[in-house]
Amino acid sequence: MALLCSRSILRYTSRSFHHYRIKDLSPEKCKPGTKVNVKGWVKSVRNMKGNLFVDINDGSGPQNFQLVINKEKGIDTAYGCSVDACGVIATTPKNQLELHVESLTEVGKCPLTEGYPFYPKKSYPPEYIRNHLHLRSRVSSAASTFRVRHEATRAFNEYLHQGGFVQIHTPVLTSNDCEGAGEAFLVKPLNEELLKGMAKENVPFDHAYFDRATFLTVSGQLHLEAMSHGLDKVYTFGPTFRAENCKSNIHLSEFYMLELEEAFMDKLEELTERVEDMLKCVTRSVLDRSAADLSLVRKLTSKEVEVEEGFQWIHKPFPRLTYEEAMDILQANEGRLKSPVCRAEGINKEQELFLVEHCQGPVFVCLWPKAIKSFYMRENADNPLLVDAFDLLVPHVGELVGGSVREDSYDRLQRKLPNFDVLQWYLDLRKFGSVTTAGFGLGFERYLSWMLNVHNIKDVIPYPRWAHNCVM
Amino acid sequence: MALLCSRSILRYTSRSFHHYRIKDLSPEKCKPGTKVNVKGWVKSVRNMKGNLFVDINDGSGPQNFQLVINKEKGIDTAYGCSVDACGVIATTPKNQLELHVESLTEVGKCPLTEGYPFYPKKSYPPEYIRNHLHLRSRVSSAASTFRVRHEATRAFNEYLHQGGFVQIHTPVLTSNDCEGAGEAFLVKPLNEELLKGMAKENVPFDHAYFDRATFLTVSGQLHLEAMSHGLDKVYTFGPTFRAENCKSNIHLSEFYMLELEEAFMDKLEELTERVEDMLKCVTRSVLDRSAADLSLVRKLTSKEVEVEEGFQWIHKPFPRLTYEEAMDILQANEGRLKSPVCRAEGINKEQELFLVEHCQGPVFVCLWPKAIKSFYMRENADNPLLVDAFDLLVPHVGELVGGSVREDSYDRLQRKLPNFDVLQWYLDLRKFGSVTTAGFGLGFERYLSWMLNVHNIKDVIPYPRWAHNCVM
Repeated sequence: MALLCSRSILRYTSRSFHHYRIKDLSPEKCKPGTKVNVKGWVKSVRNMKGNLFVDINDGSGPQNFQLVINKEKGIDTAYGCSVDACGVIATTPKNQLELHVESLTEVGKCPLTEGYPFYPKKSYPPEYIRNHLHLRSRVSSAASTFRVRHEATRAFNEYLHQGGFVQIHTPVLTSNDCEGAGEAFLVKPLNEELLKGMAKENVPFDHAYFDRATFLTVSGQLHLEAMSHGLDKVYTFGPTFRAENCKSNIHLSEFYMLELEEAFMDKLEELTERVEDMLKCVTRSVLDRSAADLSLVRKLTSKEVEVEEGFQWIHKPFPRLTYEEAMDILQANEGRLKSPVCRAEGINKEQELFLVEHCQGPVFVCLWPKAIKSFYMRENADNPLLVDAFDLLVPHVGELVGGSVREDSYDRLQRKLPNFDVLQWYLDLRKFGSVTTAGFGLGFERYLSWMLNVHNIKDVIPYPRWAHNCVM
Repeated sequence: MALLCSRSILRYTSRSFHHYRIKDLSPEKCKPGTKVNVKGWVKSVRNMKGNLFVDINDGSGPQNFQLVINKEKGIDTAYGCSVDACGVIATTPKNQLELHVESLTEVGKCPLTEGYPFYPKKSYPPEYIRNHLHLRSRVSSAASTFRVRHEATRAFNEYLHQGGFVQIHTPVLTSNDCEGAGEAFLVKPLNEELLKGMAKENVPFDHAYFDRATFLTVSGQLHLEAMSHGLDKVYTFGPTFRAENCKSNIHLSEFYMLELEEAFMDKLEELTERVEDMLKCVTRSVLDRSAADLSLVRKLTSKEVEVEEGFQWIHKPFPRLTYEEAMDILQANEGRLKSPVCRAEGINKEQELFLVEHCQGPVFVCLWPKAIKSFYMRENADNPLLVDAFDLLVPHVGELVGGSVREDSYDRLQRKLPNFDVLQWYLDLRKFGSVTTAGFGLGFERYLSWMLNVHNIKDVIPYPRWAHNCVM
C-alpha cells in the first residue's frame, strides 16, 4: 500500500528525545542507546532492588512497555496515571527493549478511591466492564477488541474495493419501512417550535419535518439495488436499527451491517461463492494483521490449544444444504433438540447451531420456502414454492449472512409488493433497463463475536444500545 | 496493497467468452482477437453504413465501450436498455478497443415513453436529476460523483490508518444531546404496543424503549474523547444529523462527518498541521486515482483550463490568521461586504468566503473568543477570553473543518459543563489518568462539493435528506 502521509507522524518533545509509539519500539527500528520519549497509561508498578519497574501502554497495540526508574531519581507514579517519560533505550536480559528513565512527568493522576472502576491485577466480567463504557478503552481486552474491529473493517473494505465494488453511503433516515415495519424507530425533531414552523395542512404534525413518516433504516438493500442498476457492484457498511424488546446475546438496537449488491448476477451458486471467498480472505487478513490483539481477546474453546486452531474452517469448503436437506437432518435428530422441527416455520437458533455442529463448521442453507421469506427474493425457476435465497450459518452465532437473487419479474414483484405507494420506485428498476441483481447482508458484530469467541455481541461494539440501555 | 481476493472475480459466460468489465478492457490486458463478453446499459446507438454502433457503460468507470453490430446479424437495441454482448475485440482507426458483436441479448428494455426521465443526448439540471434518485446512478455525472466519493472515503481511511489511527464506530443513537439540543432528532419505536410492554413508572411513555430520551448524534466527538483516553489516536467517519429548517446549499439533515481525536496533543499548531497534511495527501490521492471521473464531474471555474489548476492549493502552505487578524481584514474591507462585521458574533458565510478570496486559498482562523465557542474548548493560556480553537475556511463552501484542543482542567470544565446529569462521565475523563486531547470535525460533503466544484452538497451524497425531503 502506497504511503499517503507526506510528513512524519512522530511527535517530538524538547531536548531531542524522539517520541515513539510502543508498537514502533522494535529492536530493528530503535537501537539501545537511542534517546526516546514515550507517553501512555501506567498498567503496573513493581518495586525491586532500588528500581521502580513501570509497565505502560499507549493504545498503539496490546504490548506494554517497561520503564526502569532508579529510585535515586526520586520519581514516583502509580497504576492508572498518564505519564510522559524520557530516557535511553536498553535491552532486558530476555532481549526485550526497556527505557532507562531520565525524567518522567505524571500528566494525570488516577485516584482509585474516588471511583475508578478498574483495580490493578483484577479481572472483571464483561457485564461489569460494559457498565463503565466511558473508561472501557483503558481495559486491555476492550482496547484489543476495538483494534481488531478496526482491522476487520479495513479488510472488508479492501476486499470489496479490489473486487471492483463501490461503497455507497445508504441513508440512515428513510421513508421506506418495507421490511421492518414492526421493528422500525420513528424520527422527529426534538424542537416543537421548529415543527410548528414547518407544519402543513394534510401532513400529521409529527411528520412535518420531512412531510412524511421517517424511520431509521432496517436495511440499505433496496437503496443499494437502485445504485446497482447503473454502478453494478456496490456495497454499504454502516449502522442499522431494530426496535425489539430483546435481551439475547446476538441482538442490538444499533448494529453494523455489511450489505452488497451485484448486477448481472442471476445464480445463487455464484452469490454463495462470493460470500465464502470474502469471509475466508477477510478472516485470513485479520489473523495476519491482528495476531497479538486476537490472542489477547480470544478465549480458546475447549478443543483448541492455540488461536489458529479456531480457524481451520478457512481451509475447508463450506457445504451447501438445501432447506429440504437441512430439515431432513433436523427431523432425523429431533430427539436431540429441545424445539420442535416444523418445515413451514424455518430454522430457529438452536436448530441453526445444531446444523453447524452437524456439518462441523459454516454451512449454507439454500432454496427456502417462499412463504417465510421476503417479497424481493426471486421465485425459483423449478419450484415456484421456493425462492433463490440462502442463509449462512456459523458456529457461536448461527445465522451470519442472509442473501438472495432478487425477483426480476415486474409482474410477480407488483403482486408481492407490500407497500405500493412507498415502493413504486422499486418497480421502476424492473421497467427501465432491468437486470437481475443478487446480494446479501452480513451482521458485523456477529462476525466479530464468532471470530473473537466473545459470548455477547454487546462487547464487540464500542457503544452498545439495546432495550432499556443507551448510556452516553 | 496486497491482493486479498483469492479467486478470480471475472464472470464467465458460456461458449468461452470471458467476461470483462469495461475499465479492464485496455490494450495491455486484452489483445485484438480476444473473445469477450460485456454487460451494461446502452448510452447511445448510431446507425452507419451497414453497422450499428452501440456505446455501453457498465458502471465500472466513466468510459463507455463501443459495440459494432453488423446489420446483417438482425440484432437491434436502443438507448437505456441493459444488454449482454459477446464478440471479438478489435481496434478502431483511433487505436481504441471495440467489440465486433457476434451475439447480443437485450436483458431489459427501456420504454422511454412510459416515464423514463432521462432522454438520450439531453443534459439536465441537477435539481431535475435529484428528483429521480432511484435512477440517478444511470446518469454519468452522478455515477462519477459516487465513484469519487468512494475513492475519497478510501483515501481518508488509508491516511488515518497509516497514521496509526483506529476507526471507532461511534453511535448514531445517543442520550447525550449536549451540543445540538436545539437541532437534535428524537427517536422512539414506531410500534406503540412494544412501548406499552416496556413502560415503567417514572419514565415518560415515549422514552420507555431506552428508559431515557434518545437522539440521533450531532457529533461523535465526546465518544471519541473517551476512546482516545486509552487508544490515543482514534477517528470516526459516519452519518451525523441536524434538524434545521434550512434550504442552503451547504446543509443536510443527514451528512457525513470525519472526526478525529488524538491524545497527548496539546498544541493547536500541531493540530492544524495534521489537518493540512491530511487534506493535501487525501486530495492528491483522489486526483491520482479518480482523474477520469473527476474531469467528467468537475466544472472548471472561469480561471481554469484543466482540472489540476483547481488544485494549486496542494502545493502552497495554508496561511494561519488569528481571529483578531481575520476581523481586522474584514473590517478594513467592510465596504465590499453586504453583512456588518462584529467581533462578538463570529464570521458568517459571506465573510468566510471573503477571507478565502483575500488569502487566495484555504486559510486557518485560530484562537476564537471563548464566548462564541463550545464548552469543551481549552481556555488559551495567555488570554482567558480566547480558546485554542480553529476553523479551516476553503473556497466554495467556507468552513470545512473545525477543531480545538480540549479543555483539560477538571475545575474549569465542571463550571462550563452544560448538562451535568448526562455528562458526568465526561468529567471522569479528566479525573482518572487525564491527558490533553485535541481533535477536529470535517464535513465530508462540503469537501466533495469543493473538490468537485459542485454547487449543492445535495448532489454529492447518494440519498440527500433535508427539510421537507426524505424520498425513498
